[in-house]
Amino acid sequence: MLLKKSNLVTAALLSSCLVSTTTIAGSEIALLIDMLRDNGTVSEAQYQRLQAELKQIQSQNQTSTQIEPPVQTTQAIKPVVVKAASDQFTAQLGGRLQIDAASYSGDPKMGNGTEVRRAYLTLKGTLSPDWAYRFQYNFADTGEDGKGILDAFVAYQGMDDFDVTIGNFKAPFTLHEATSDNFVTFTERASIAAFSPGRQIGAMISDNNDDRTWAIGAFGESVSQHGGEEDEAFGISSRATWSPLNQPRQVLHLGLGMNYQQTGSLDTVRYKQQAETHVAGVNLVDTGVINQAENVLKLGAEFAGVWGPFATQIEYVSTRVNRNKVDDVHFDGWYVETSYFLTGESRHYSQGHFARTIPFKQVGTGGSGAWQLALRYSELDLNDGAILGGETEAVTLGLNWFPTSALRFSANYVDVLSVDGGPNADLTPRLFQVRSQWSF
Amino acid sequence: MLLKKSNLVTAALLSSCLVSTTTIAGSEIALLIDMLRDNGTVSEAQYQRLQAELKQIQSQNQTSTQIEPPVQTTQAIKPVVVKAASDQFTAQLGGRLQIDAASYSGDPKMGNGTEVRRAYLTLKGTLSPDWAYRFQYNFADTGEDGKGILDAFVAYQGMDDFDVTIGNFKAPFTLHEATSDNFVTFTERASIAAFSPGRQIGAMISDNNDDRTWAIGAFGESVSQHGGEEDEAFGISSRATWSPLNQPRQVLHLGLGMNYQQTGSLDTVRYKQQAETHVAGVNLVDTGVINQAENVLKLGAEFAGVWGPFATQIEYVSTRVNRNKVDDVHFDGWYVETSYFLTGESRHYSQGHFARTIPFKQVGTGGSGAWQLALRYSELDLNDGAILGGETEAVTLGLNWFPTSALRFSANYVDVLSVDGGPNADLTPRLFQVRSQWSF
Amino acid sequence: MLLKKSNLVTAALLSSCLVSTTTIAGSEIALLIDMLRDNGTVSEAQYQRLQAELKQIQSQNQTSTQIEPPVQTTQAIKPVVVKAASDQFTAQLGGRLQIDAASYSGDPKMGNGTEVRRAYLTLKGTLSPDWAYRFQYNFADTGEDGKGILDAFVAYQGMDDFDVTIGNFKAPFTLHEATSDNFVTFTERASIAAFSPGRQIGAMISDNNDDRTWAIGAFGESVSQHGGEEDEAFGISSRATWSPLNQPRQVLHLGLGMNYQQTGSLDTVRYKQQAETHVAGVNLVDTGVINQAENVLKLGAEFAGVWGPFATQIEYVSTRVNRNKVDDVHFDGWYVETSYFLTGESRHYSQGHFARTIPFKQVGTGGSGAWQLALRYSELDLNDGAILGGETEAVTLGLNWFPTSALRFSANYVDVLSVDGGPNADLTPRLFQVRSQWSF
Repeated sequence: MLLKKSNLVTAALLSSCLVSTTTIAGSEIALLIDMLRDNGTVSEAQYQRLQAELKQIQSQNQTSTQIEPPVQTTQAIKPVVVKAASDQFTAQLGGRLQIDAASYSGDPKMGNGTEVRRAYLTLKGTLSPDWAYRFQYNFADTGEDGKGILDAFVAYQGMDDFDVTIGNFKAPFTLHEATSDNFVTFTERASIAAFSPGRQIGAMISDNNDDRTWAIGAFGESVSQHGGEEDEAFGISSRATWSPLNQPRQVLHLGLGMNYQQTGSLDTVRYKQQAETHVAGVNLVDTGVINQAENVLKLGAEFAGVWGPFATQIEYVSTRVNRNKVDDVHFDGWYVETSYFLTGESRHYSQGHFARTIPFKQVGTGGSGAWQLALRYSELDLNDGAILGGETEAVTLGLNWFPTSALRFSANYVDVLSVDGGPNADLTPRLFQVRSQWSF
Repeated sequence: MLLKKSNLVTAALLSSCLVSTTTIAGSEIALLIDMLRDNGTVSEAQYQRLQAELKQIQSQNQTSTQIEPPVQTTQAIKPVVVKAASDQFTAQLGGRLQIDAASYSGDPKMGNGTEVRRAYLTLKGTLSPDWAYRFQYNFADTGEDGKGILDAFVAYQGMDDFDVTIGNFKAPFTLHEATSDNFVTFTERASIAAFSPGRQIGAMISDNNDDRTWAIGAFGESVSQHGGEEDEAFGISSRATWSPLNQPRQVLHLGLGMNYQQTGSLDTVRYKQQAETHVAGVNLVDTGVINQAENVLKLGAEFAGVWGPFATQIEYVSTRVNRNKVDDVHFDGWYVETSYFLTGESRHYSQGHFARTIPFKQVGTGGSGAWQLALRYSELDLNDGAILGGETEAVTLGLNWFPTSALRFSANYVDVLSVDGGPNADLTPRLFQVRSQWSF
Repeated sequence: MLLKKSNLVTAALLSSCLVSTTTIAGSEIALLIDMLRDNGTVSEAQYQRLQAELKQIQSQNQTSTQIEPPVQTTQAIKPVVVKAASDQFTAQLGGRLQIDAASYSGDPKMGNGTEVRRAYLTLKGTLSPDWAYRFQYNFADTGEDGKGILDAFVAYQGMDDFDVTIGNFKAPFTLHEATSDNFVTFTERASIAAFSPGRQIGAMISDNNDDRTWAIGAFGESVSQHGGEEDEAFGISSRATWSPLNQPRQVLHLGLGMNYQQTGSLDTVRYKQQAETHVAGVNLVDTGVINQAENVLKLGAEFAGVWGPFATQIEYVSTRVNRNKVDDVHFDGWYVETSYFLTGESRHYSQGHFARTIPFKQVGTGGSGAWQLALRYSELDLNDGAILGGETEAVTLGLNWFPTSALRFSANYVDVLSVDGGPNADLTPRLFQVRSQWSF
């Protein structure tokens, strides 16, 4: 119950504006009205009507002020402000919280448990016309891949043909990475996320239109890599998408991606993946450290479609590790997913990725929110030549409930169909996981 | 002096509202007044009075605008905003800083020093009607129990009988845990805090009324526990309170708590406690790791009373560790504290816990703030059977100064009266610690 | 392109204020105008003019509301607020991001790479009249000296003669430390930063006037030091500055600093420094741990001048380590830097330190921002007696571009001229580094 009062905060803030104003403007008018009555310009009846109107307005404001509960008479409500060097400066805060619980059966052994999967705060806006900034941090310490700086960049958006972005951000590659984890269909991305470059420090040019997007950038390593005597990895990533059909409830999306990375002084790479879960943190397939890796070339192909409440999405990623003095190795994977809104909504597509679901009828305004069923099949093959990381297939059944557009509750059942080779050969776990999420 | 200007920020922000408004409303009125004079409806004297009124209002607004110092003519002040998916969305920021210094004498050896004890930021509000959220983070890295996610939850408050909360939050147990560390009487909670479950990931139903509160929830482990092959601990926690007397300066509070926890795959528990201090980080009593622990049952009993400037508070906690194949062990502890406001204020009680002290006369408005004297006696017994963690008694004398309701300066003298058994048997340190605190 | 809409957020917020106000104030006026026409007090022509004026104002407000794009009809924009215990409470958010890339040649081996050098968020304001607070956190995890609490204090500013500050903040010492890293001339401070005390927990009295500043405080250790059995280091730091000439484009600055520190129970100190770079994280000179160090006395002398677009700055720091039973050691260093704004701006000096550069013509308003060339020579001598940390000289050439006052792009070329003694004796690396920075 504690938080309910904050409903009233903004109302009180705005009404304070109104009250002050009317009082000030009103005092002149009151004086004028009095004079006009005294002069006989307005009749007594007219005077009474004007007075009544004036009082009613003042009392309305009074009422809207009184919705602020009289808890502490000395408490005041103030907006948090930003002092900027330019009139065009803006600052906007965003937040995201994902709380998970998971239960596992079968081998390998994974511990049942709970996790704050993601806890993001984002500050973004414009520094001045054409200069955008964004800073985003993950406060959830989930071990290896958790806590730390996410988006951290400045972007110049003043040119007609493309934007320039400098800082730390997602290297453009694949549809499911371009889609925020808030809005992907299942609680975890498909197993080919093993090949995702993730966020890296770099510079990118890009252009996003409704029907076409393209981006190409040069990138170093992620922010979690510290300096030292060794040169960082360095690479190029690019992605282009085309939507020949792009209407609110009918979308056809095609995309291609290319990611090339020189491995830096260390000449090593490693690919690994959990069983499309995250709570236990146990890898199902894992190449281990691959030495003598000179560079890596990844290619991705994307297809997605939306037809009213139906949506489908297919992606394939190929990863070739070019090795020095030993045979190159080639890994790949793909997934297909389809989803259906029982309540009739459509997946929301925008500029090369999927976005927020807005329920037709939100809980709290007489509705029951949006309900979505989804099914996914995925493969990931980390076996090639001398490298036996494992090849795995899994199927996932998902149910999403969006009570409002800011809230999402998800339940996923993952059945690992097979694991060939690798550290967990022939072990096929099953798992059930749930998530509570708010984001704004 | 640097920060003084921020005094003026909000004033400027609001006055910008007023100025614009009056100008706009004023221009119609000015025109009307001119016309009425020209028509002879108002006399020249009346006209002068109306003009004077108009000018005075405009000049008042002018003045309130001019308090913004002309430092950088290009600097602009903007509110930080949140773009929400619902009209009912609200966001409110809170902060807390506690800076401590401590000096120790006697054994065991503890290093004199300083510490940022807590540095919290909180973002909370409502996502839409009936859905509240809260995210709170501790930025103070004080070692083992410091930095990390605190409250992180979503709560549904749309039902008449109870609220539902999902996420990471305090398991309901004991009065001194239910009371924010901002508002507890001494700089550190009494030694039975060794038994506090703290914040855990879980789901809870609860109902808080002025005279009665109850809460019961199922919980996993804290956010700082990462996954792995072992199952997490899992348990249930509940608390109920009753306030037969509940008036602003007269309170009688009774409470009961129950906390049950299965210890997960590892079958271990450990209880330890510092000498009601935190800067040195040295444990005075410590059971070490207790193996073969199947589950733990804790019971708590609470009593508190407020009579004008006097307040008292007593709590007892019993902890039974049920062990496999070896004898169970039982620990317990209790404390009694009493406090008195020299300046006449009362401890502020609300819905099962104590809350913020509002001084009668704040410093800066002619007053000297609120001054409070307090005394506490505490016991903690971690000796039972084969487990010798130590049994300790301590007395604490405290002085709190609240210059304003946002500020608190505290000085505590702790005298450890006895330590029987355990790693520091017969060592009885004394310590003096001070704290500077702001919170909003 | 995504962020461009946030340009409109504040406009919409403020215009909502205006619209509501005019409507309310307007309804009385409209009624009055109608009555006056009906009474024949104002003529039909006058009535039309009044009506036109009224409509124009309403339509202006209507227009300013319509700039909010109709993206999501359910999206609402709300300010983040703070509920304070006092009417005088204010909260202001600040941010800073520095993204670096560096390339190295010569020995010692340093890895080329990228880094988020600093990512700060700051929350500051006033709790009530005369009480200021500030909390600042560095989210950039760059290893040893990175992530953590920066400023975290409360300050009482209600006395005429001086302010009192309690918490964690920079111990007052040297001009280049008093100047924010946002506003120093080069990407990294000169090598004598090895002697900077940095931020420590303590209490300080200070007074900052335009022409004179002084500060003296007692300090413990930094927030990153945890407790334990050993006493913390403890010391005193002070600084005084005088500006006999202090005009917007003409400044003469003189300063003296003194920092004394007892080394605590451990009796150790260590001084080390990278090659005026940070990405690789490799120390060029390093005394290693110096034992039997009882206390350290540092003295600093400062000179700076601004003549229109020219600026120069010279500092010398002497550090004497008083050792127990072995010979004391003495280290020192100095630098001289000069800079010139090609576009005619002046370095901005304020109360004992340099501050934000405001370009004459910002990019986006027809200008090309401010361009600054700079040159620095620095020396650091960590060789004395039995301690051979190394003595190094370096020269740095820098170019800064400030497209707007919130943005800065810098390129620095550092040539290490010599290294005598120490772990990298006779190795003289060269390096090129670039930075993208936004700050507000």
